[in-house]
Amino acid sequence: MQPFSSEDRLLAWLRGRPGTSLVGDDAALVPGRGPFAVTVDSQISGVHFPAGLDAALVARRLLAVNLSDLAAMGAAPAYGFLALATPPGFALRRFFTAFLAACGRRGVELAGGDLARSGGAGWSATLTLLGTRRPRSRWLRRGAARPGQALWLGGTVGESAAGRLLLAAGARATARGVELPRAWRAARAGAAIAAAARRAVRRHLAPDPQLELSAWLARRPAARAGGAIDVSDGVARDLHRLCRESGAGAVIEAPALPLAPGFGELCARLRQQPERLALGGGEDYVLLFSLPAGDEPPRTLGCRRVGEITATRRVRLRQAGAGRRDGGTVDLPPIGWDHLER
Amino acid sequence: MQPFSSEDRLLAWLRGRPGTSLVGDDAALVPGRGPFAVTVDSQISGVHFPAGLDAALVARRLLAVNLSDLAAMGAAPAYGFLALATPPGFALRRFFTAFLAACGRRGVELAGGDLARSGGAGWSATLTLLGTRRPRSRWLRRGAARPGQALWLGGTVGESAAGRLLLAAGARATARGVELPRAWRAARAGAAIAAAARRAVRRHLAPDPQLELSAWLARRPAARAGGAIDVSDGVARDLHRLCRESGAGAVIEAPALPLAPGFGELCARLRQQPERLALGGGEDYVLLFSLPAGDEPPRTLGCRRVGEITATRRVRLRQAGAGRRDGGTVDLPPIGWDHLER
Repeated sequence: MQPFSSEDRLLAWLRGRPGTSLVGDDAALVPGRGPFAVTVDSQISGVHFPAGLDAALVARRLLAVNLSDLAAMGAAPAYGFLALATPPGFALRRFFTAFLAACGRRGVELAGGDLARSGGAGWSATLTLLGTRRPRSRWLRRGAARPGQALWLGGTVGESAAGRLLLAAGARATARGVELPRAWRAARAGAAIAAAARRAVRRHLAPDPQLELSAWLARRPAARAGGAIDVSDGVARDLHRLCRESGAGAVIEAPALPLAPGFGELCARLRQQPERLALGGGEDYVLLFSLPAGDEPPRTLGCRRVGEITATRRVRLRQAGAGRRDGGTVDLPPIGWDHLER
Repeated sequence: MQPFSSEDRLLAWLRGRPGTSLVGDDAALVPGRGPFAVTVDSQISGVHFPAGLDAALVARRLLAVNLSDLAAMGAAPAYGFLALATPPGFALRRFFTAFLAACGRRGVELAGGDLARSGGAGWSATLTLLGTRRPRSRWLRRGAARPGQALWLGGTVGESAAGRLLLAAGARATARGVELPRAWRAARAGAAIAAAARRAVRRHLAPDPQLELSAWLARRPAARAGGAIDVSDGVARDLHRLCRESGAGAVIEAPALPLAPGFGELCARLRQQPERLALGGGEDYVLLFSLPAGDEPPRTLGCRRVGEITATRRVRLRQAGAGRRDGGTVDLPPIGWDHLER
């Protein structure tokens, strides 16, 4: 594929594709009556993904992590604004082709953006997404959890962090699939471990934002509403945020944490405590939410009840085997990703 | 000043300041009925500004270049979303203090954002701005220029590019002001050249988006409306875009181009053709717009008539001394910044 010879040629190409009708002025005029839910997230090479990763994978991941924020708000994805900073020779056409296709599947229109050179060999992409409120739905909020509600997770946790560790250990994603470091291949590690490792890498690179669960939660009547957040920085840290905004606390049942098949064995081989990875690994991009006791999401959505919201403003963990009394719990610190920690 | 020990502490600090009331959920719920004008722009160290430049200056410049896009749409600034990628030890507090103060002066509320480490020693900031339509005003568009209308510039051009060249030659902006390279100081270059050089560096680093002119243009009745674009990539390139979107052409009168005092002498010393810098230097952040013949902006706004919109779809330049006939013009290629050219 020929690289684009100029920015205007890239723009002309983009404007010839579906889902880009608002591109072309100094700012995009976003139609609709609002309010909008607006979120922004970046993907930076060497930070959020390995330098050298296929630009198409990064394009889809960028959209997915932003969609996960909209899912946490109950918003329907609508408009995207992309700022791209790339070195000479970057695979712009590959990036945009994958990005526009993923946007099309999710109902996102690319409405504007910015192109720039990056300062060095690395590259980064920042996406701002605007979402709208669905008919007969409400916004989901972090601050809406209430004592006595059950606490739920929308999917497994910790697997993405295991995938990140595998990438750091040399796993690679290629057009043919995930290539594991020698020590992790089936012949040496066993087929089950190798399969779990591949799944973890895929889970890390290609998160699947929970838009269907989000839409179900947003349709709950206000009287049955709970709080919601997406797990990006780790269950513990994001649960602290949910509790802080709600003026409440929570108890998580450690044995109830949903884990991927083979996750224990994978962690053992990675010399990681499964519980620590599950609670503090981050980048899970599942929803953490509360619902009135007795309410539960449709089985097909694969959610798991993991604890409850308490009036005491502490976040606690009940270990396996501990009793149901307060004494059987330990304080759960807000472990997880911190973008300022070094 | 102490650095922030965690992302949550920075967020808590931010949320305690005016103009940040929407911060705190997975996405911001932007109130208002829309439509919104949305724009996004980045500032990247080593690309848009010299590495090592005061973070407060970059914060203000980031806001200014985005505001200039909203000015080109006739929009009133409303909400900002900031994605910041910084190395350890970065002066976050200095950046945010300057950024929030600048936002406050311009009526922008910081509604959300994203914090990440940058991949290396450099840093970057990407701002998405949402603007609203003012009462009794219309949106300005690139595509609204009509043959026979006069073409105007909102301020001087080329000076910013001269400032960029001076920075590349060693000029520095410090807390005390602009420090010129030895050869450019008053004792060696003369007081007038030194003053012009300092002004050029300041103009480059601290552009002043034309929001007042924008508001005036947006209040024009539809029947008297013209096209508008902000000059970010150079008069020639941005005029080509205005003409393309309008299905028209233009003639620019070279002698009419508004130039800063001392610009000719500054260019001579920089070994640059003043006309080339004025037409292709870029980052001027003034409005380029058209108005029906006979209409003109208030004198106090300092605009200059520089040519006219033509039915012929060519962009031409009439050199000093050339006649008014077609023969006295040359085609003006779309010279200027191209973010894909290397």
